[in-house]
Amino acid sequence: MDSKWKRIIVSAPGKVILHGEHAVVYKEPAIAASLDLRSYLCVEKRNDDKVSVQFPDVKLTAFWNTQDLKKLSIPKCDPLEPQPPSDELLSLFREFTQQKKDTTDPKDLAILAFLYLYTAMQSTDGELYPLDFKLMSQLPVGAGLGSSASLSVCLSAALLTVHGVIDQPCSSDADKVMFGQWSASHLEAINKLAHQAEKIMHGNPSGIDNSIATYGGAIRFQGGNIQKIDRIPELRILLTNTKVPRSTKALVADVRKKYYTYPEIFRPVMESFAAVTEKALETFRMMPRDSSTETTDLYSTFEDLVDINQNLLKLIGVSHSTLEQICQLTSDYGLHTKLTGAGGGGCAITLLRPDTDPDIIEEVQEKLRSCGFDCWKTVVGGPGVVTHFILTQQEQTLLNNLIS
Amino acid sequence: MDSKWKRIIVSAPGKVILHGEHAVVYKEPAIAASLDLRSYLCVEKRNDDKVSVQFPDVKLTAFWNTQDLKKLSIPKCDPLEPQPPSDELLSLFREFTQQKKDTTDPKDLAILAFLYLYTAMQSTDGELYPLDFKLMSQLPVGAGLGSSASLSVCLSAALLTVHGVIDQPCSSDADKVMFGQWSASHLEAINKLAHQAEKIMHGNPSGIDNSIATYGGAIRFQGGNIQKIDRIPELRILLTNTKVPRSTKALVADVRKKYYTYPEIFRPVMESFAAVTEKALETFRMMPRDSSTETTDLYSTFEDLVDINQNLLKLIGVSHSTLEQICQLTSDYGLHTKLTGAGGGGCAITLLRPDTDPDIIEEVQEKLRSCGFDCWKTVVGGPGVVTHFILTQQEQTLLNNLIS
Repeated sequence: MDSKWKRIIVSAPGKVILHGEHAVVYKEPAIAASLDLRSYLCVEKRNDDKVSVQFPDVKLTAFWNTQDLKKLSIPKCDPLEPQPPSDELLSLFREFTQQKKDTTDPKDLAILAFLYLYTAMQSTDGELYPLDFKLMSQLPVGAGLGSSASLSVCLSAALLTVHGVIDQPCSSDADKVMFGQWSASHLEAINKLAHQAEKIMHGNPSGIDNSIATYGGAIRFQGGNIQKIDRIPELRILLTNTKVPRSTKALVADVRKKYYTYPEIFRPVMESFAAVTEKALETFRMMPRDSSTETTDLYSTFEDLVDINQNLLKLIGVSHSTLEQICQLTSDYGLHTKLTGAGGGGCAITLLRPDTDPDIIEEVQEKLRSCGFDCWKTVVGGPGVVTHFILTQQEQTLLNNLIS
Repeated sequence: MDSKWKRIIVSAPGKVILHGEHAVVYKEPAIAASLDLRSYLCVEKRNDDKVSVQFPDVKLTAFWNTQDLKKLSIPKCDPLEPQPPSDELLSLFREFTQQKKDTTDPKDLAILAFLYLYTAMQSTDGELYPLDFKLMSQLPVGAGLGSSASLSVCLSAALLTVHGVIDQPCSSDADKVMFGQWSASHLEAINKLAHQAEKIMHGNPSGIDNSIATYGGAIRFQGGNIQKIDRIPELRILLTNTKVPRSTKALVADVRKKYYTYPEIFRPVMESFAAVTEKALETFRMMPRDSSTETTDLYSTFEDLVDINQNLLKLIGVSHSTLEQICQLTSDYGLHTKLTGAGGGGCAITLLRPDTDPDIIEEVQEKLRSCGFDCWKTVVGGPGVVTHFILTQQEQTLLNNLIS
């Protein structure tokens, strides 16, 4: 551990699925993109031999003696080629933290993921450093926005950096650069390790959430194959959380039942979903890099695709009265909305044009909030995991409690 | 003309499209069925040399001297192999009735259709009989329910019978048979002639409406090919007329625009429509003839298909807020609704199970009416054109004004 180093702040974005949710189950393509709602992790040196975690989003506060953790018989783990967390290892951590078996409490799972990542580092330099880990996330938990992946990626990036496995991106004060991004090979290391941690929290994750949290931008995924999209415009959206809880598993099972009851009807529907995704990708590729170039027609296509997709999702039965309500409400203002993720509640995204009147956006947000929904004006397609050199005013306010 | 004959009453049903509207434009199959809302035509001998028509549904009252009509130079027409009405013939009628050219007023078109059918009969026995034609229809005009075809079929059946081209179906009072149906070959003659009259009212009609009005039951049609369905159960429905006027032409054009803008998305959607239609036909074939046999599962399939189809229709953009309102309102009572025909307003059909509580049906009808809609509890799949020997109480009430 570099002795000059006192604190690092890293952040990683959440994700939204733009098109193709549910169709992916049937081997059709989907597009996911990063969300400019991020998790911030502040890691600071301690002067004692303790390690502490404060992850208020999952109501987790804990600390341990590094010596006690060192005594656990953790198998060797190469952090660049990490092994999946074994059942034995997880049992060891559960015993150590006196957790019940088969707990699905996000707090318990976060503890396991943290301990997996933290102790894996012992294989690098034989050390487990006394550190404070403080998390502040803008992402709601359990809303399908990849909050756990953004945590895993932040932890992986910070730990790999602290242990010198990867280099801290450089900056000089003279540059006035706000944040730094890791090199491609270092991002690959962060992503691989975070994917293993995700397995603790999600069983058999697709790797989409951690890929987006690591690389940002957007990806096309199909049949387990993740492919980075080169040109994704930064699209402005309203993200609305209905706060209606839903079970992704149950929704996927419902669709599967429909699909296998009426395969001749729903097979073509899945092909239609695929065509929407491909058309969206084609339209992304046509977006000019120069923001002054006219994009009215391209946005009209995006809007059409949002509407078509929402109707397809309704057709397979994964919409919800609250989602319909958001579609109707935003449609009254000429805006286009679809659910994102599993549906049946959860979140919706509303596309904003570059020239959408800010007063209208304000008014729509107000109305959505008055319906009891959470609503953020945000951007998709932004950067992945970064380390912060200088915080923006907004970030400083956000992180005030962490870094005070 | 048989001298014993004094009055004949014929009736023919309207039609609803059960599945496949819009998809037919893309050469996919559709199912239409007869509707137990009928047009009744009462034809009575007159003692003078006049012919009169009273079609109150299209606000038409007219009478002419048969001698004046005989003076018109009507080309010979074999009513069993009728020629399409020529432009010259229609011009002749327009001049005779002092109509404006290119009028689309249903009243004017009904006059032309009547005169075409009435004068065509001169080719059979050289006569144009002095008769009263009085129509009473349960079908709203211009709502896509085939009201004009039911009129054409009634007129064709009555005129072909009066002129002895086809025989009046037999009955003896002892049989207590309420109505009689023509033989297959006579029905074919009625249908052919009515199809020509439909051309006056609809330009280039598919022949679906007159086929249903003639044969009753249900038909499968695809790419101009009309095929009678052998086993159609008599399904009970609520038929709701939103009374929102819409242009079939404009709706078809809107869908075409979507289809050709996003062919990869909408081609599979049309295949999905086709699969719904085929699944409905398959389910019809599975319906037991014996009404005491359990049909719960089959009705569940019908309900699924209604919901899926309505969502597909919404996807192609032909639903309407009033139609959505009817879907929502009936869904609150566990009932399943889809639009029928062109959409964008017009009519909706709500499936009723054999065991749907009559009180619930009453309540739903009440609610739909309180929304300003017309609503009928009716049956699809009933008989085509018939001649009435004895009227039911309900028919007698209905026709009181005509036959008094």
